[in-house]
Formats: sequence, C-alpha cells, structure tokens
Amino acid sequence: MSKVVTFGEVLMRLSPSNHRKMRQSHQLEFFFGGTELNVAASLANFGMRVEQVSAVSKDFVGEAAIASMRHLGIEVPAVTRVDHPLGLYFLEIGAGMRPSQISYNRLHGAFANIIPDTINWEEILEDCSYFHWTGITPGISEAAYKTLKNGLEVAQKKGITVTADPSYRNNLWKYGKEGGEVLAELTGLSNIFIGGVNEINEILKTDFELSREGFIEASKELIFTIPSIEKVFDKVRTGVSASWQKIYGQAWTGTEYINTVELEISSVIDRIGTGDAFAAGIIYGLENYDDQYTLEFATASCVLKHTILGDNSLVSLEEVLDVMNGNTGGRIKR
Amino acid sequence: MSKVVTFGEVLMRLSPSNHRKMRQSHQLEFFFGGTELNVAASLANFGMRVEQVSAVSKDFVGEAAIASMRHLGIEVPAVTRVDHPLGLYFLEIGAGMRPSQISYNRLHGAFANIIPDTINWEEILEDCSYFHWTGITPGISEAAYKTLKNGLEVAQKKGITVTADPSYRNNLWKYGKEGGEVLAELTGLSNIFIGGVNEINEILKTDFELSREGFIEASKELIFTIPSIEKVFDKVRTGVSASWQKIYGQAWTGTEYINTVELEISSVIDRIGTGDAFAAGIIYGLENYDDQYTLEFATASCVLKHTILGDNSLVSLEEVLDVMNGNTGGRIKR
Amino acid sequence: MSKVVTFGEVLMRLSPSNHRKMRQSHQLEFFFGGTELNVAASLANFGMRVEQVSAVSKDFVGEAAIASMRHLGIEVPAVTRVDHPLGLYFLEIGAGMRPSQISYNRLHGAFANIIPDTINWEEILEDCSYFHWTGITPGISEAAYKTLKNGLEVAQKKGITVTADPSYRNNLWKYGKEGGEVLAELTGLSNIFIGGVNEINEILKTDFELSREGFIEASKELIFTIPSIEKVFDKVRTGVSASWQKIYGQAWTGTEYINTVELEISSVIDRIGTGDAFAAGIIYGLENYDDQYTLEFATASCVLKHTILGDNSLVSLEEVLDVMNGNTGGRIKR
Amino acid sequence: MSKVVTFGEVLMRLSPSNHRKMRQSHQLEFFFGGTELNVAASLANFGMRVEQVSAVSKDFVGEAAIASMRHLGIEVPAVTRVDHPLGLYFLEIGAGMRPSQISYNRLHGAFANIIPDTINWEEILEDCSYFHWTGITPGISEAAYKTLKNGLEVAQKKGITVTADPSYRNNLWKYGKEGGEVLAELTGLSNIFIGGVNEINEILKTDFELSREGFIEASKELIFTIPSIEKVFDKVRTGVSASWQKIYGQAWTGTEYINTVELEISSVIDRIGTGDAFAAGIIYGLENYDDQYTLEFATASCVLKHTILGDNSLVSLEEVLDVMNGNTGGRIKR
Amino acid sequence: MSKVVTFGEVLMRLSPSNHRKMRQSHQLEFFFGGTELNVAASLANFGMRVEQVSAVSKDFVGEAAIASMRHLGIEVPAVTRVDHPLGLYFLEIGAGMRPSQISYNRLHGAFANIIPDTINWEEILEDCSYFHWTGITPGISEAAYKTLKNGLEVAQKKGITVTADPSYRNNLWKYGKEGGEVLAELTGLSNIFIGGVNEINEILKTDFELSREGFIEASKELIFTIPSIEKVFDKVRTGVSASWQKIYGQAWTGTEYINTVELEISSVIDRIGTGDAFAAGIIYGLENYDDQYTLEFATASCVLKHTILGDNSLVSLEEVLDVMNGNTGGRIKR
Amino acid sequence: MSKVVTFGEVLMRLSPSNHRKMRQSHQLEFFFGGTELNVAASLANFGMRVEQVSAVSKDFVGEAAIASMRHLGIEVPAVTRVDHPLGLYFLEIGAGMRPSQISYNRLHGAFANIIPDTINWEEILEDCSYFHWTGITPGISEAAYKTLKNGLEVAQKKGITVTADPSYRNNLWKYGKEGGEVLAELTGLSNIFIGGVNEINEILKTDFELSREGFIEASKELIFTIPSIEKVFDKVRTGVSASWQKIYGQAWTGTEYINTVELEISSVIDRIGTGDAFAAGIIYGLENYDDQYTLEFATASCVLKHTILGDNSLVSLEEVLDVMNGNTGGRIKR
Repeated sequence: MSKVVTFGEVLMRLSPSNHRKMRQSHQLEFFFGGTELNVAASLANFGMRVEQVSAVSKDFVGEAAIASMRHLGIEVPAVTRVDHPLGLYFLEIGAGMRPSQISYNRLHGAFANIIPDTINWEEILEDCSYFHWTGITPGISEAAYKTLKNGLEVAQKKGITVTADPSYRNNLWKYGKEGGEVLAELTGLSNIFIGGVNEINEILKTDFELSREGFIEASKELIFTIPSIEKVFDKVRTGVSASWQKIYGQAWTGTEYINTVELEISSVIDRIGTGDAFAAGIIYGLENYDDQYTLEFATASCVLKHTILGDNSLVSLEEVLDVMNGNTGGRIKR
Repeated sequence: MSKVVTFGEVLMRLSPSNHRKMRQSHQLEFFFGGTELNVAASLANFGMRVEQVSAVSKDFVGEAAIASMRHLGIEVPAVTRVDHPLGLYFLEIGAGMRPSQISYNRLHGAFANIIPDTINWEEILEDCSYFHWTGITPGISEAAYKTLKNGLEVAQKKGITVTADPSYRNNLWKYGKEGGEVLAELTGLSNIFIGGVNEINEILKTDFELSREGFIEASKELIFTIPSIEKVFDKVRTGVSASWQKIYGQAWTGTEYINTVELEISSVIDRIGTGDAFAAGIIYGLENYDDQYTLEFATASCVLKHTILGDNSLVSLEEVLDVMNGNTGGRIKR
Repeated sequence: MSKVVTFGEVLMRLSPSNHRKMRQSHQLEFFFGGTELNVAASLANFGMRVEQVSAVSKDFVGEAAIASMRHLGIEVPAVTRVDHPLGLYFLEIGAGMRPSQISYNRLHGAFANIIPDTINWEEILEDCSYFHWTGITPGISEAAYKTLKNGLEVAQKKGITVTADPSYRNNLWKYGKEGGEVLAELTGLSNIFIGGVNEINEILKTDFELSREGFIEASKELIFTIPSIEKVFDKVRTGVSASWQKIYGQAWTGTEYINTVELEISSVIDRIGTGDAFAAGIIYGLENYDDQYTLEFATASCVLKHTILGDNSLVSLEEVLDVMNGNTGGRIKR
Repeated sequence: MSKVVTFGEVLMRLSPSNHRKMRQSHQLEFFFGGTELNVAASLANFGMRVEQVSAVSKDFVGEAAIASMRHLGIEVPAVTRVDHPLGLYFLEIGAGMRPSQISYNRLHGAFANIIPDTINWEEILEDCSYFHWTGITPGISEAAYKTLKNGLEVAQKKGITVTADPSYRNNLWKYGKEGGEVLAELTGLSNIFIGGVNEINEILKTDFELSREGFIEASKELIFTIPSIEKVFDKVRTGVSASWQKIYGQAWTGTEYINTVELEISSVIDRIGTGDAFAAGIIYGLENYDDQYTLEFATASCVLKHTILGDNSLVSLEEVLDVMNGNTGGRIKR
Repeated sequence: MSKVVTFGEVLMRLSPSNHRKMRQSHQLEFFFGGTELNVAASLANFGMRVEQVSAVSKDFVGEAAIASMRHLGIEVPAVTRVDHPLGLYFLEIGAGMRPSQISYNRLHGAFANIIPDTINWEEILEDCSYFHWTGITPGISEAAYKTLKNGLEVAQKKGITVTADPSYRNNLWKYGKEGGEVLAELTGLSNIFIGGVNEINEILKTDFELSREGFIEASKELIFTIPSIEKVFDKVRTGVSASWQKIYGQAWTGTEYINTVELEISSVIDRIGTGDAFAAGIIYGLENYDDQYTLEFATASCVLKHTILGDNSLVSLEEVLDVMNGNTGGRIKR
Repeated sequence: MSKVVTFGEVLMRLSPSNHRKMRQSHQLEFFFGGTELNVAASLANFGMRVEQVSAVSKDFVGEAAIASMRHLGIEVPAVTRVDHPLGLYFLEIGAGMRPSQISYNRLHGAFANIIPDTINWEEILEDCSYFHWTGITPGISEAAYKTLKNGLEVAQKKGITVTADPSYRNNLWKYGKEGGEVLAELTGLSNIFIGGVNEINEILKTDFELSREGFIEASKELIFTIPSIEKVFDKVRTGVSASWQKIYGQAWTGTEYINTVELEISSVIDRIGTGDAFAAGIIYGLENYDDQYTLEFATASCVLKHTILGDNSLVSLEEVLDVMNGNTGGRIKR
C-alpha cells in the first residue's frame, strides 16, 4: 500500500471535562493532536498507511505522545526527540452561545526546535503517494518552515501529490517571516488546495468576497497565479451555536464548481479537528473516488468528527459511508 | 399486592463515559440490565411488586448483579447461581449522526446455562397476576427456551395474563431453532402482544407494510392466527439523530385502532431500555387504566427513559403523569 | 472602586454528575452557591468589588466555603463562623422532559443561626454603593430576617441603592412569619425591584395576570404602593424542555415599558443561578449603562449562565458583550 | 432463619477521595452508613437475616438510602419516611500522622425526628433472636431514645438476646438527658455488653484503669451492678499511625478472661465501621461459636474491615475464616 | 534487531478502582493484559523488538486491544480477528489481609477459538531469536494448544531459543487434555524453564519440597528427564500481606545454584503481571547478561512491576538498573 | 498583623492520578504550586498574613492560578500578567522503589518573562516583616534574578528579615549566569539560611561532608564568609522508599547545634513541597518560638505535608502542634 506522509507538530491538548472552565477544575483530560496528526489519524482509521514526521520532547511526555501515535496506527520511525518540552494547548470547551477558548504553549516547544538536518526526506518519501502539510507548521518557527520546505521540494521532485491546508493563524508567525508570503511560496510546491476564500485572500493579498461566486473567482485566480494547484476543496460552516453547526462542501475542480447538501449536527461533542477530518476525507477521496464523491465523503467525515471527543477523528470508513447513504437517525448497531 | 414475574437474563453493560469510543477509554461505566430486568425495574419504580427469575454467575460479579436487583426493588428468591460467567455487552454510545454500537458476550454465559429443573414455576407463580417475557430469552439457548416454555405453560394454566415482547434479534438463535417458529409457539401461550409490524411479520412469515394500515391489518391477522392474543400495543420511533428522537404509541385493542400524540426528545441521555419502559408502561396500564390511557402512559414512560442513564428506567409514577399532564418545560422541582 | 454588598446564605450544592439520579451514584459534585453568593460571584467576574456578609459553619466545610468565596473574588471579612452545620441542598439534574429536583437541608444550618449582633452593618456598608438581597434570606429564620432588616435600614440611611429580588419560596417561612408581609416590608426599604407579576402578586396580595399588560399594571401598582421602588426588571422564560430554554427581558422604568429580543439556548448545561446572573447583570448595568442596555446586558448574562456548570456564573464582561454583539455561533477563540 | 434486628440512624457519609481535604475537592464519594447499619450490613454478608428499623427523609436522598439498604441485603419494611433531611456527616480521611476528621449534620435530621408511635415493635420483633443497639441512638434525640427504649422493653419481654455497644459521644446528648444515666438504664435492658473500660466508666461513673486488670475489674463491677449483662466483649487498638493499626480482642465471659493474638494492618483503606465489624462478629459468634472462637472471629472481622472502603463491611464469612486460618499473605484467589 | 515472539491470549482486565469491591462500584478500570502480552510489553519497554501472535474479537473491543498492543510497542501483523468475544477477567484488588480475587470469562473467547491454520509460523519466526510461551495457553482450548505446538516445532527447527513459563492453573484444562502431560510435552520443545518446584512437580509428577535443596534437586531432575531444558530460573515470594511482599530470585544454571538478595515492597500498587516482569527480565538477560546478572535484573524488574498499575510492566531499562545499583530511596528525578 | 512576602513562580503541576504513568493516563490532576507559593500557602494556613509577588499568563490559565492563590488565602495585588504561557511541570508519582519523575516547561513562561520595572518593591514591602526567596527564582531567567535582587535590596534597607532557601537545581541556570555565584550574592542579602551541607558547598565552592560535623563546620564557614546570615536550619531525610521516609531537623543557631528526633512516615501521599513546609515552619517559628521549638515545629510541619496531596501544605497550626504533642496514632477527630 502506498503511504501518506504528514509533517507537523504533535500537540498535547489539555481541557477540563464536562464543559467546566479551568477555574472550576482540578483535573484535565488530555489528548495528543495537532492538525497534521489529526489528518494522519483519520487516514489510518480509513485504512490507509500513514507516517508522520515530527519532533517531540525527550521525556515521558514525548514517550506518551509517540505511544499515542502508534495507538492511532500512525507510523513513527522519523519522529525525532529534542530536549525541549512538548508543545501543548489548554482548551475550555464552550456550549450554546459560549465559544470554546484556546491558549497555546508551543512557540518554544520540541517541534519549534526541530533540527532540519535530522529529517531524511529522501528516505521518508520513498514509497509515498501523498504529502500533506498545513499553514500551522511554517508559522511555528524558522526551523519548522525550513524542514517543511525541504520536504516539499523532495516531494515535488518525486512526483508525490502534495495537499495543502494553508490556513493562516495570527498568533503564530513570531519569528520574522510574513505569513502570506511563506504560504504562497509553499503553495507553489503543492497540488491540491484545501481552503476557501479567506485562505486565498491571505496568500494572494486579494479581497474576494465570502460567497459562492467569490469562491469560484478566488479559486480561478489561485490556479492562475500558482499553477501547481489543480483543485480547490472547501467546506462552509454556519454556527447556530457552539453546540449546533451546519456544514457543506464546495470545490472548484479546475473546470467546474461542485458542492454538497448541507449537513447539520445539533449536539456537538467536540469541534476541534473537524477541519482535519475534512482534509483527510479529501485525501482519501483523491485516492479512491471522483471529485463529487470525494467532496461528499470529506463533508460527511467532517460532520461525523463533531461526535468524537478529542482532536483525532476515530470515524471508520463504514461510518462515513453510512452517513452518505442517509443513515443518520441513530439506530443502534448490534 | 399481586405480583408481576419476569424471566430473563441479567446482562452487565459496560460502556465508556462521555461518548468516548472504547479505544479512547481506560474505564467503563457499568449497569446491570437486560430487557426483562429493565421492565421489572420500571414496574418496581411505579410501585408494583415484581420478581425476576434468572440465573447468574457464582462469583463476585453475580453477587453484584443480585445486589443491584435488590437495589432496584426487584425480588430475587428464584435467581439461581451457575458456574458460568455473567453475560455482558459492551456499548459505545453514539451522538448526532453516529449511532451507538453494541458487542455481546452472552451465548456461553450463566443464563444460557440455566438448568430448567431448578426453576419451580408452580411456586414462583403462586400469587402472580402478570408474566412478562421477550423474544431475547428463547434466542439465547435451548435451556433458556425450555425454561421459558415451562413457565408460560404454568402461567396459562393459572390464568395469569402473559405479556409478550417477541422482538427478533438475528445475532441470537445460534443453537439450532428457527426464531420465527419458536416465537410463534410462545406467542400462542401469551395474551398481550407488545410489538408492531416487523415482529408480526417475523412470526407469521407475512409482509405487512410499515404504516398505520399495515399495523391494523397485521394485528388483525395475528389475533386471527394466534387467538390467545387479545390486544397489540406498539410504539413508532423516528430518529432525527442518535440524540434526537420522536415517538408515538399505537394499539389495536381487538376492536379499534388508537394512538397518541408524538412526543419529542432533543437531548437523549440514553436510548437503551426505552422499549422496555414502554412495555412496563403497558403492564402498569393493564392493571390500572383503560387502553387509551395505558398507551399514553406507556409512551410517556418510554420517552422519559431517554433522560435516564443506564439500562433501567428509574422514572417514577409521578414523573410519567406529569409528562402526560403537559409539564414538559423543565421547571425545577424544589 | 465602590463596593456591592450582598447578604445571604452560603449553600453547598451536591449533585450527581452526568444527569445521574442519586440512586445511581456513588459520588457527588459540589459547589458553593446560594442566590446572593451567585450574584456576588457574577459581579466579581464583571470586575466589580463585592463583599458578601454571611455565617458559615465552624468546621472544615465552612473553611472550604470561605476559601471558595475568596476563589471567586468575593471579599469575606464579615463572614462569621457559628457552631452549626453549613446549609446544603441535593440536586438531581434533569434532561429533556425530566425536570431537575432539589432537596434542601438548611433550616437548622449555620446561616439560619446567624447572630444579628455580630454583624456590624455601619462598618460593612462604609464605602458601599449597592446592597442586594433576595426573598430567600428572610424566609430562612427570624435571625436571618432581623439581620437583613438591620442591614437594609442602615443602607437606606446611607443612601445606598438597594436591589431586591423578593422571590417567594413556599418551602421556607417555617418560623412563624407570613412571607408576603415580610417581603412587602423589606421591599419598602429597597429601590430596584427584580421580579415580575408573580412576585408582585405575592407581596401586594393582588392577582395581575401573566402578560405584558399584567406586568405593566403590576409594576405601576407596586411603585404606587411602595414608592421607594423606582424601577422593575424582569425576565420571562419559556421552557421547551429542561435542556432547551428561551428567555427575554422586560422592565418598567418608571415611565415606560422596554424589552429585549428572545434569546434561545438549546443545550442547557446548568440552569441553577441563571436568575442570579440576570440580577447581577441589572446591578452592573445600573452602575454602567442606561435602562435598555442594562436589560439587554442582564438578559445576555442570564442566557450565558445556562452554559456554565454549577451555581456561580463565571461569565466575563467580554463574553456578555460578545453575545450582545451577535457573536453566538460558537467560533473558537484562540 | 431467625432474624437480627438493629435500630438506628441511616447516615450519609460524604468524603473527598484519595486523601484530599475538603478544600481541595470538587466532588465527594458517598456511602450510607451509621453504626447500627454497619452491623446489619456485616451480618447480612455473613449470611444472617437482618432487619433495620429506622426513619429516613421523604425525598430522593431517603429513597437512595433505602435502596442502598436493600442492596446490602438488609430488610427494610419498618423504615419510615419523615419530612426532615437525612442525617449526614463529612469526613476527611487522614493518612500517616494526620488523623481523619468528621463533621456531623444529624441533630435535626429524619432519624432525630422519628415518631415513636409509628414503630410497631411487637410486630417487628416477632421472629427475632437478637436485637442490637448502640449508644449513638439515644444521644441523638428524645424521640430516638424513647423509640429505642420501647423496643428494648419489648425485646426483653420476648426473651430476645440484646447486644449493646453503649459508646458515649460527647458531641451528642444535646436534648437534655445525661448520657451516662441513659446508657446505664438501657444497658439494664441488655444482655451482652460490647465495650471496654471507657464505656463502663462512663456508665458506672467509675474510674477503672485502661489495662487487662482494669478491664476484668470493670467487667465484674458492670455485671454486679447491672445483672442483666452476662458477658463483656472488647477490642483493644494501638495506632501506629492513621494508616497502620494493631488490634486484639479481649472478653470477660462471666467466669474468665480470654483474649486473642494481636493482628496488624499496615495499609488501612478505611477505619470507619471497624468497631461495628467487631460487634457484628460477636453477634454472629454468639449464634454459631463458643466465646473464644467468637472473640477471634470478631477480631478478624474488625481487622478485615480496615481493607474495605466505606462504612459498611463487605467481608464474607469465608474471608474472616481465612484470616483466622492464617492466610494473610495476600495470595490472589482465582 | 532480532525479534522476540510471544504467543498467547490478549485478555481484558476489568477492576474497580481504589480497592473497591465490585458491589461498591459503578465503573471499572480496564487494561489489556494476558501473561504473554505482559512479557512482550516489558521487553518492548526494555528496547527489544517484540511481536505477539494472537487472535482477538472482530468488534470494537478487539480493535481497542490491537491499538493498545501497538501503544505498548508490540508488533501485531499476525494478530487475527475471529467472530467471538475477547476473553476477559474481573479483578477485585485486595489490601492488607484481604487477597485480590479474580473471575475469568475466557473459555469461549476469541483466543480459545483461534484457527491454527491461519497462523503462518514459518513467516512469523523468520528473524526471531526468542520464542516465549506459558502454561496458560495450552490450557485454554485444543485450538490454542495445537497452534502453540505448531509454533514450538517450527521454533525448534529454526534453532530459536524457547523460554517456557509452564505454570499450571486448575481453572483451565476443561477441553479434555491433562495439564501436566501437555506441559511436559511442550517443555520438551523448550530450552529455558522459568518456574520452580511447584511447576516441576506438576510436570514430572514428582513431589520435591519447597526449599533451596528441593529446587536444586527438582531442577536437576527436570533437565535429566527433559534434556532440551538448559537452565531453570525461579523467583521466591513471601507475602507479609496483599500490600507487602518480599521476593528473591534463584536459578539452576545447569552447573550451579545462584540466587539474589531479597527485595521488599511495602506498598504494592498492583501485583498482577509481576511474574511476567520476572520472565521478561530473564529473556532480556539471556540476550545481554550472564546468569547472575540476569537473575538480579529479572528480580528487580519483578519488584518494580509491583509499583505499576495494570497488567503490563512499563518499567524502563534505566529504572531496573537503578534499583540494581541500590537507588531505592525514592529520590525525585527532575 | 505584619506580613510575609514571597517572590517566585506560580507553577502548574500536572500529574496522572493513582500512581499511573503518563502513558497510562487520559487525564491529569493539576495543582498550582511552586516552591515559594508553597511556603506562602503554608503560612496562610498557620494564620499569618502573606503576599506573593509573581507574574502569570494573560489567559484563563493565569486567571485560574490567581483564583487558586486567593483560595489559599494568599494576597495577590502585585501579581502581574504577561503575555507568555504559565510555567508548568509534569509529574509521575512514584511508589516503593520507583522514584517520582518530573519534566519542566518553565524557561520561556510568564514568570521567566517578568518585567522588573513593573514590581514596585517599596510599596509591596511597606508593612512586611519577612521576605522569603529560594534558589529556584534566580535560576529561571535574568529578569527573575534582577527582580529578586531589587526586592532583596529594598528588604535589607527596610530591615526586613530575609529567609533564604538557596537550593541549586542544575536544570535551571540556562541564561548565562553561574548558579553558585548568584546564590552567594543573594545570600549576602539574607539573614536566615534554610539549607544544609550541599547548599553551602554549592555557594562557597567548598566540600564539607554530609554529617553532623560537616553541617556544623559548613554553617560556621557560611556565617564567617557571609556575615549577614545569622542562623542555619536544615532537615535530614532518609528514604526507605518513595513511600516511606524518615526526617529530622538540625540547626546551627549561631552558637550551638540543635536537632530533633527523627519522625517517620510509612505511607507517603505526596512528597512535593515537603521542604517548603519545613521552610514555612521555620518562618512561623522565627516569629513565634525559640530555636528548638521552631526546629521541631518545622520538622513536624514537613512530615505532615507528606500526607497532603498536591504541592501546597494545607496543614493547620493545631495539626502540627498535635504531632509535636505525640498524637500520631491516627485517632479520628469528631
């Protein structure tokens, strides 16, 4: 089986349970996530072979992170250990009108201090078909950016399909680079763009509007400006409240606009990682389905992730297909 | 007070908390349930005298099961101990579009190995008015089937009203009997049928359709074919999602079709045992109300069970009557 | 910063987690609440200086109560210790059609046995701008009533704005006084009335109806009869179920009727203390906003409290303003 | 099987887990105990038929208490419901040099408000062989004292063996009676005295010293003064720390002094209810063994209770006999 | 790195926390263990490459078991899935004089129903240096026995060192074979015997006594009778209580008797799997150390396992060496 | 009441419960500690007025830290907020021969980024009698060192007694200063030295040996070299295992050597912060007792802390005095 490779930070998430606020808690649930890890976990669940390249701390927290990756079915031979603490974030899970809140502790962590030369991309990408990256990684540190760029160059050379989820986060990019420029450069080393109008505007310094038309125009402009990109996949979310969300998928296939029906979830268990479940759905679909089915698969994957606690989607292939077949009434499976 | 007797397996339920999947868990909540036990628990809560006949394991798990039955107010003098492990099942509780999943470990358990001769039905059914059985029991093992049949014959002889919930489960019936035939035979020893078109089709080998008309026709045919049956009570469920369900009751009273308004629950806590809460409502109603009120009582009992964690309904008589009186807005009771 | 003073019982709340019933539980979560404490906590969260006057038990439970008050940012120099157990209540949290249930143990507690002479109101109310009381306190015991009356008299003398939430509870008032009369007397020592038709009817022995018109008429009558009252603020709640509530605010400003749009919460985490969050919003608004904005602020504060576990609102000023600005879709704050 | 009857308060115990202090906790574990209930639970575990007479609250806490008694195998037909809260206590569990601490809330509870006339002792004591009481009960309230005295008089009339554990607690006896006098009066209606020098000194107003000789002299004096008493059973405890205890039993059989070897427990799980496990051992022994074996059985029962969390001993007959046979090395039972 | 292969059941362990008894619990902690899995986990922790061959259930429990094995660092390519529930056991953890109790549910489980032909031993044992088995496996079912025998024959053919821990459990062996005979046969396909006088007596039908001399004589007789065995390693345990244990190691190296000092643990966290930690220590030592150091390493590994919750030893190489170097005073490692 | 001021980092501690290792856990208990905070908490418990100066993160974690300080009774007006994450550490709690392990994440945290100019020492030290610092603070960052030095200079100027606990940690001191030199400089601004031979050797670059004589010689040399120091207080610990520790105190009073008996704790709950409980005992003693009683008080305080979960000692004055009076047998306090 050919392999998907992801590259990114393994982040520890710490959150009070049962919608408590930090101040009301004496204990925290934890999960190992990070946007690329979430994509990897989801793909492993779908049955694909996945390897994540990363750097974790040289302590018992780093050991736990690696064990957790293996637990998820992710291959870890190129996870290095560095003498810095594992990046982490605190999460207060919202409800109703109260949004979730996140506070990060990652900018001086193990991954930010990855040593580019310790990652042998030639070897890692040997039998790889897809390489996935996100806009988080190059925003963390120069070392992370360089390591990623090295990887993308090798990937392009080897003809690997590169999927990019270049979301911009303004609490990153503290090391001196301008986010939009870097993302544009790295998008130029990629083939599939997972994102929408906001992301394209950030990269192209444009101001397309948030609408179907805006999406089509922006996608065309993106492909015109950065011709390595072949297709643009996006999901559109409407929040009724923190507990009730509606989502549909849309794409520009290079030649046409396609979209899905809107799916609705009125009892959100966990919203973190739902975008990553969408990205994983796209990658799985690229390998197995046509564009329309890929988009529907990714949207169902995304919606189902809202029912799973933690960062990682543990949704199986069968569960996604079930939802695509309209089995959404919650009949018990015995 | 005259007694209700139930006969069936005491099943241990093990499930991760907070909608976690098994893979994400280090601990499991457990409850002692089983469809007949759930009916018994509900009736005890309504204030009826109930005894359950069963067989449990001769170890500390079986002791805990018996203590739990006493806790629920169920009488246990005829619960025997056999040298086999207690039957159990694992449950992953779904949410939204993700359905709950169940995995059983019961076919070689204590109840499957019940010894028919150790159950003295003459004595047990001495001062009994209702005997309740379900289609699960005869599907577990030949020993369970025989013990049940013995009991039903004594019950019929004594003029006890027998209520049957002959649902068919295709992961049972591994011991050589054909389910439909056995259920037909045992229904012939019963008076009240709690079930709908699916159950009747299974027993009569018919194919009535799932509609009001289908239900009426199927009920008539059932009573024609198996004349010991006097009335048919059924509930109809529509699942918006695993977390949002709608339910109404319908019945064929032998002479007319009656039904209830549809009740809705948008924040399901636990769906297991809701059918049993309906059956318990029917039995309580048979003793205390007319058919229409019985059906409404059973439907309200069923809906309220969705708000109780675990297999057993702990809903009181007052709570059911409150819902029937339209008090559904959640005003705090001080 | 001028100070708000509240006077009332510190009540320990004990409730099973995850919607369990008491019978299904081996452990209870606890919080320190009480209606006046909840108001105080909310005001401290909004950034106001607040002191609560109370009496707690002379044991490790009382110590924990005081530590918890400090934790919330409430000043505690006038919390006395008496040799009686802390008042407490048990709560079973409902869901869907099942209402929450409360059982109290407070009538012989520490606060009921407060010694009026140990409370030096002159000193406590030195640099105080607002004094808040509720109808719970005078219903607990004669000692509590007397202590409150002493305080109100000093407050009036000092020109402090007194806010009254004179809700009547019929499981109190066991010590020989008639609730309505006492509440009328104490309302006569107050300036702002937080309550609606029910409360006014109780005090004035009238029977205004539950409607917009009824509210206006009742408010006018209240101000006519008890002229110390200047304004009446009220919230109107419609319960779809215990888990789904709709709320809007209304007020009689002395000269006109104002109200807010209805806000909706479909996934209630905790309903206790939501009225107190409304009252706190009113007090904060009186100090900072005009009447319309005050009412909107209080209503948003009330609705947001439904998303916080426990009795105390931990909602910040920013969170309330966010909801007032329409940010209710649950977008994660990073 | 002849029955043991106990009479006493059902107390709810609330304690932080894992040796936390109250101030460090957000949740409490709870158990239903009370010294007489503990004796009853232990006897039920040994296989005896036991009924407890009591009064509990008319709310969901009282329901939980009754369910818990049934769970333990205790018969509850004469448990009445009164409109007062259930008595309870808070416990901080010590460790090492830090002693456990208890704070009570029971003096105005359901049991303190028992209505003597609602207890039909003639009927309750119909087929009873042993009646057990302790010095806690008459210290709670006059109503409790009167109800107990009524019961003891009926018991003596019927020739039932009365076992008394008349320990004196100075945080009780707030209703006007002097503890020593009342205990002397009630001991005069009893046959077996479970207690030692301290208890005898309290009752006889003597000052025997704490030694083997003192115990023998005190016992002789007790039997001389209160001739209904036939035998005196006592346990002697030496505390190395809260986590490490040594215990042996001694008795005056009416004619001779007997004792046991000292047993040692270096990892105490829970010390509450260990005296009650001793008393239960005495009662079981009186029915089944000679005095020496009774004393050894009771001492082993007492020591084993230190390994059980909560107030109730869940130790089985086999486990006690195992310890008496020297199997104390912790070999796993498969 | 050459590989160790283990073959055995993956057992789910379910136990109440905090020394509770089953009857006192509403939730259970779970771990995936099984004696051979425990050995494998321990070896993976020491840094060896380990693969376990097994059969697990075709449901979400089996998935969780496999994920857990990966988490531990065990390779799982030859773990098959069969349509039977995963074997499991319930454990009540003792304390002080109260021993732990275990109740099994494994005889009709997935592993008992392994299909011998689905295990390709030639391939599995390709680059393997050590093959480890225990006496549990052949006692479970004929299928398990046959599969094991197939494996041992291939292992012997390939010159792999076979380590045997042939402990006899009398609650197994229900399928018609006599345990001692089977164990003798399989020991004849093994090279290193991990066990002592009891195990040798069971196999040889001898009655050597439990002493140093008995061990030496038994070992000699074993090697004489079953000459494939080269060395015998054993640990000797003295239980002060369930919480306090003393252990030393002894061995017959084929030419001489060696032993270790006795190590003591006065605060046992978990005793399950301590023998497996000893066996893992032996295997690690065989590869890396001489006999004396191997025995000391294994004994320290065994003692350290008593401090780890659950079945699997998570003790690292460094931690074992630390104890061997006398660092046992608990100085915090920062 | 005059005030004690401490200056140091508020550290969040995260540890698995029940002796689990990180890899075995899904949740972590957390506490806010840090060596100076622990001293402050202990003093507040003894009834002293204490203020801590610190810098915490500008997020909900920092808010929780401040609330927790208030909860402990520590005054917080000079706790600043900076835009860096709160320092934290992970702890795996050992048992028996397995030592606890700690992994830090603090070097880029809020406290390391404290801004010296934002701390107004003149104002803070207005009515202060004792200023306490430790060797951790100057090792974290240059900013922390400078802020501390500023404070010490003001303290000396004001004649405040400065207590120093200058322990050296080699995982700090990454910012370019040599630890020993800095500690010597700051000790020169202090009056009471809490430490022993190791600390003195580090500061003076000497090599006194670990013995009573070595302690006396080292203390004399310290006072000779750094004459601001008047007295040296030290505790001596012997670890039987991580769960069993022995401790006694010793001091050089400037004129004589004094010491205490050795106290023993065989069931350690938590060892973190025990040295801080000793330091707090010294400070409390300096204010209230003579040297010998001070040393005994501090030693008892230290030993009692081993029974409290978390970093902070919650031991009361009465509990310490009780131990000093020999009440160590664990008799329950009712």
